Amino acid sequence: METGIGKLLDTINNPPDLRELSLEALPGLCTELREFIIDAVSENPGHFGASLGVVELTVALHYVLNTPYDQLIWDVGHQAYAHKIITGRRNVFHTNRKYNGISGFPKITESEYDSFGVGHSSTSISAALGMALASKLKNEPDRKIVAVIGDGAMTGGMAFEGLNHAGVEKSNLLVILNDNNMAIDPSVGGFSQYLLNISKSQTYNRLKTDVWDGLGKMDGIGHKTRRFLQKNQHALKNFLLKQNNLFEAFNFRYFGPVDGHDVIYLAKVLEDLKDIPGPKILHIKTKKGKGFKHAEQNQTQWHAPGKFDKNTGEILGCECAIEKAPKFQNVFGETIVELAEQNEKIVGITPAMPSGCSLNVMMEKMPERSFDVGIAEQHAVTFSAGLAKQGLLPFCNIYSTFMQRAYDQVIHDVAIQNLQVVFCLDRGGLVGEDGATHHGAFDLAYMRNIPNMIVSSPMDEVELRNLMYTAQLEGMGPFSIRYPRGCGIYRDWKKPFEKLEVGKGRMLSEGKEMAILTIGKPGIFAQRVVKKLKKEGIEAAHYDMRFLKPIDEGILHQVFAAHTKIITVEDGTIKGGFGSAVAEFLTGNKYSAKLKVLGIPDRFIEQGTPEELYKECGYDAKGIYSAVKELLET
Amino acid sequence: METGIGKLLDTINNPPDLRELSLEALPGLCTELREFIIDAVSENPGHFGASLGVVELTVALHYVLNTPYDQLIWDVGHQAYAHKIITGRRNVFHTNRKYNGISGFPKITESEYDSFGVGHSSTSISAALGMALASKLKNEPDRKIVAVIGDGAMTGGMAFEGLNHAGVEKSNLLVILNDNNMAIDPSVGGFSQYLLNISKSQTYNRLKTDVWDGLGKMDGIGHKTRRFLQKNQHALKNFLLKQNNLFEAFNFRYFGPVDGHDVIYLAKVLEDLKDIPGPKILHIKTKKGKGFKHAEQNQTQWHAPGKFDKNTGEILGCECAIEKAPKFQNVFGETIVELAEQNEKIVGITPAMPSGCSLNVMMEKMPERSFDVGIAEQHAVTFSAGLAKQGLLPFCNIYSTFMQRAYDQVIHDVAIQNLQVVFCLDRGGLVGEDGATHHGAFDLAYMRNIPNMIVSSPMDEVELRNLMYTAQLEGMGPFSIRYPRGCGIYRDWKKPFEKLEVGKGRMLSEGKEMAILTIGKPGIFAQRVVKKLKKEGIEAAHYDMRFLKPIDEGILHQVFAAHTKIITVEDGTIKGGFGSAVAEFLTGNKYSAKLKVLGIPDRFIEQGTPEELYKECGYDAKGIYSAVKELLET
Repeated sequence: METGIGKLLDTINNPPDLRELSLEALPGLCTELREFIIDAVSENPGHFGASLGVVELTVALHYVLNTPYDQLIWDVGHQAYAHKIITGRRNVFHTNRKYNGISGFPKITESEYDSFGVGHSSTSISAALGMALASKLKNEPDRKIVAVIGDGAMTGGMAFEGLNHAGVEKSNLLVILNDNNMAIDPSVGGFSQYLLNISKSQTYNRLKTDVWDGLGKMDGIGHKTRRFLQKNQHALKNFLLKQNNLFEAFNFRYFGPVDGHDVIYLAKVLEDLKDIPGPKILHIKTKKGKGFKHAEQNQTQWHAPGKFDKNTGEILGCECAIEKAPKFQNVFGETIVELAEQNEKIVGITPAMPSGCSLNVMMEKMPERSFDVGIAEQHAVTFSAGLAKQGLLPFCNIYSTFMQRAYDQVIHDVAIQNLQVVFCLDRGGLVGEDGATHHGAFDLAYMRNIPNMIVSSPMDEVELRNLMYTAQLEGMGPFSIRYPRGCGIYRDWKKPFEKLEVGKGRMLSEGKEMAILTIGKPGIFAQRVVKKLKKEGIEAAHYDMRFLKPIDEGILHQVFAAHTKIITVEDGTIKGGFGSAVAEFLTGNKYSAKLKVLGIPDRFIEQGTPEELYKECGYDAKGIYSAVKELLET
Repeated sequence: METGIGKLLDTINNPPDLRELSLEALPGLCTELREFIIDAVSENPGHFGASLGVVELTVALHYVLNTPYDQLIWDVGHQAYAHKIITGRRNVFHTNRKYNGISGFPKITESEYDSFGVGHSSTSISAALGMALASKLKNEPDRKIVAVIGDGAMTGGMAFEGLNHAGVEKSNLLVILNDNNMAIDPSVGGFSQYLLNISKSQTYNRLKTDVWDGLGKMDGIGHKTRRFLQKNQHALKNFLLKQNNLFEAFNFRYFGPVDGHDVIYLAKVLEDLKDIPGPKILHIKTKKGKGFKHAEQNQTQWHAPGKFDKNTGEILGCECAIEKAPKFQNVFGETIVELAEQNEKIVGITPAMPSGCSLNVMMEKMPERSFDVGIAEQHAVTFSAGLAKQGLLPFCNIYSTFMQRAYDQVIHDVAIQNLQVVFCLDRGGLVGEDGATHHGAFDLAYMRNIPNMIVSSPMDEVELRNLMYTAQLEGMGPFSIRYPRGCGIYRDWKKPFEKLEVGKGRMLSEGKEMAILTIGKPGIFAQRVVKKLKKEGIEAAHYDMRFLKPIDEGILHQVFAAHTKIITVEDGTIKGGFGSAVAEFLTGNKYSAKLKVLGIPDRFIEQGTPEELYKECGYDAKGIYSAVKELLET
């Protein structure tokens, strides 16, 4: 690069190159790495703030550890860009999150440096403990296992399940708590306040400084410190803490907090800690967006800002802004406020996604009636059930892929008790660039299994509004509404509310030659196909079913009585989903017909634009059109 | 009763009766209540030790609280027998867990005193917080919300999610930590050790005694103590604790530990605590099985002992012992040891069910290679994924109903990474007396949705062994084996292992008039039906499919080519399960046939014996027989 920036980074293809550098060279490398990330993400959008925050930690870890033999697990993984760049993927980093490119998350099939695939939160301690105990059983005492987890991810219950188990296993596990006081939105809950308290405590910091600085001034720091730490475990423990600490309660040795942006210091601390046996936690303080002023100042917006001008910090906006049709999430965000103004029972719940699902609109206007409960889907659902049991009407908004975390709670706490909780499943269907871990592929199928559950999906923004309106009417039970990531189709979407009849779909086109049944967004694709067919003189009927359960048996009888060639289209797995429900009806009612089921096939779909992925799965307009033609020819 | 025991209890139909008693009368009532439970459960089996452990707590809570206006939530709920008996259900308690009787768990449709339905662990804090915040929004400042949760249930991550959220909400929530150091088996993990430490700490106990005893000696204890507590919150906090406490880290006020078997003292403490605002935790120490010597001494065995002689403490055994066929769980327990002796990669994992799933056999023989991770299904699965990633071969045994808790981890951490983890789903299908919360109704359907997952279910013990053998062979991916609660059919089940071909079923009977396809245990019923039909001169083919996915398309082509009348039978929901897979195949391959799908209908099934419930759902032998006859007549 002409500016000279990147000269050092250019020499680092893999961690062994990094380990050739002197300690003193690391800050310069961090600067270059940060510039590289800013350059790359400004042009090819992705997660931003999180990766900037762990540049120093990433460099220090690969400098000190013997990766890939040592195992490094990044919780969630959207902070792993620096990791990817210095582990052999600098030259392909421009393909990040693109179709056939590299994944935006660590992935075991992509690199031996990616020790464990991630994407959803709070898995790292469990995975790391499994790996640590595997090493113990395989007699590999020299192998280090390190999990890096944010304070946001620590609010997920399974992180505590992992801590609880790790505390009694004699394994060489190091958990690094990357405390930036943020999830995507600011971290919430008692735990987050606790971290703030221990970080701010004067006594605590003084003790910390005494010990670490004292140790730091010794000659031959690594060896002597290690000996000191090993021989004086109890003394050190008392000296450092003089009080019970939450992590100590789980049998972890706690160290910290330390400045996560001082790479030299971090490397020294890690060098000292890595050989201490048993479960340990190192608490580091970092700033999300570190090194890019705008991102430091508005951390939520810069979590994943889309394209931006790296010089001015101007965010260049997404396609929706251009076309003026709203995102589905905004329709949810504004509609719940409208409904809550009319119905005082309505409350809103989100597990750590207020900006992602747009519940932040309600949180600003009605702070008493809207709750961000942390990255805690299980709690979010049962908490909603508790609210509903006492007569309130919760709208619990959880991304389809994350609702997998609360499947039991939906069944056990809501559906069995037949409570009126409205589940709004954002990001249903293929989500695009986040890839396999984040596609909402399964919800139609797994919700359909649940007794008492109404399962619906709107084709467009107006239908979403009307489903939300219908779901909050008296006498409804558990009600699931799933809708896609991204934009709708109407500029003028704020129509008066209309009650929809539960279990009733609508006919959008008449036609005699065959019928297309859709649920949700693919109805839009089908409409295009119907138009195209019409121009060719082919008349295809099209029904937007709206409800997967109860399914509109009236329409189905009508369709199977009139047609022998039928296509179903859904933005979800074909195993057990909408097409499967139609097949059940067909065989259960002794009709005979040719049924072609389009949807997500029975394999994991990687990243790409939604359009690329719809095409791959064969249910974009072109795919539906081909299926129609093929069916008509047989 | 002749002995005079029960005289007082006979007068207590509901908590208002209880509140007429003097404090001094409560110990006597507790004795009678305990006797009543021992009498009842010795004759009509159910959960035992847990309820004996909370007799005093139950009486104290209903004595002090204004139930049912105040809300009392029992975590898990198998400790709620005393609660049921003193809230209007003494006279129907002999129907506990029986078909059309009362549920073994609290249930909102059964009594207004059952504030929230339970069954699965660790939900109470979340539900209680929802109810507390509903009260706040509805402006009911006088309504108390109390959750009672065991130390075992606290190892479930969602309990921590609830604590984390509750810590920052200003609600009048009291959490009672019922610490008996047990789940069904002894509690495990760092948290359990922590509770032991704080309970045993000399300093801590001294402080506790000073404060509580001091307060206890004052006249007019309730009022003065309350004033003292309210006015001296900070002083008290420092005095009581002088150290950070885990619960304080979550912003809860911590009180305790106190003796949970001193009912008078408990009532006084609760009276003092109930009006203190904000989230509070009261830590009580109890003994599981309290008051019945045998249960105190062997707490795991007496968790749910079956019928027993209340005088001698002899456990009278179950039907399996009589018929000498093993329980499926024992086949699992012994087989995993045999396999692990041959394959050193095999490790065993259970979330707090070592005795329930029989992993305790391996834990005794191979303690290094078998793990009880606590009530923590999410962690159990991702921990298994970590072990598998490093080359070990985990058998992760989780009851079907509890696997709902780890659905996301199965998808995200195992299936996406295509790791060889063997999921053994015990208690698949209708489980009987535990009822709606515990039936394994959904796993066939929800596992079938997941790409890369092999989904299988054995018809008998020998098939279970062979599936387990097959699953651990090299080259397999994620592999799910679900089998029922209860007994198998063979005395001589320990046959040499045989490799089964993945995706291949077997024909058990030839027949031309129709075909029955089964998966899992209903194959046994179908065999009886086929024999009966044969006697009537009707030849029905019967196939045991073994694998739901990949499904044996060879068999299906054969069947649909030869038959137009087909019945499928599964011990799982008909929505999206085995029958649905067959319907998908039928419609996808342009066959035409009459397909009748038998299985669990799309509603929640209550408790009863498995036989009663199979009958209700219409897929016991009689139900299958009727379906065959009906199909043949059309």
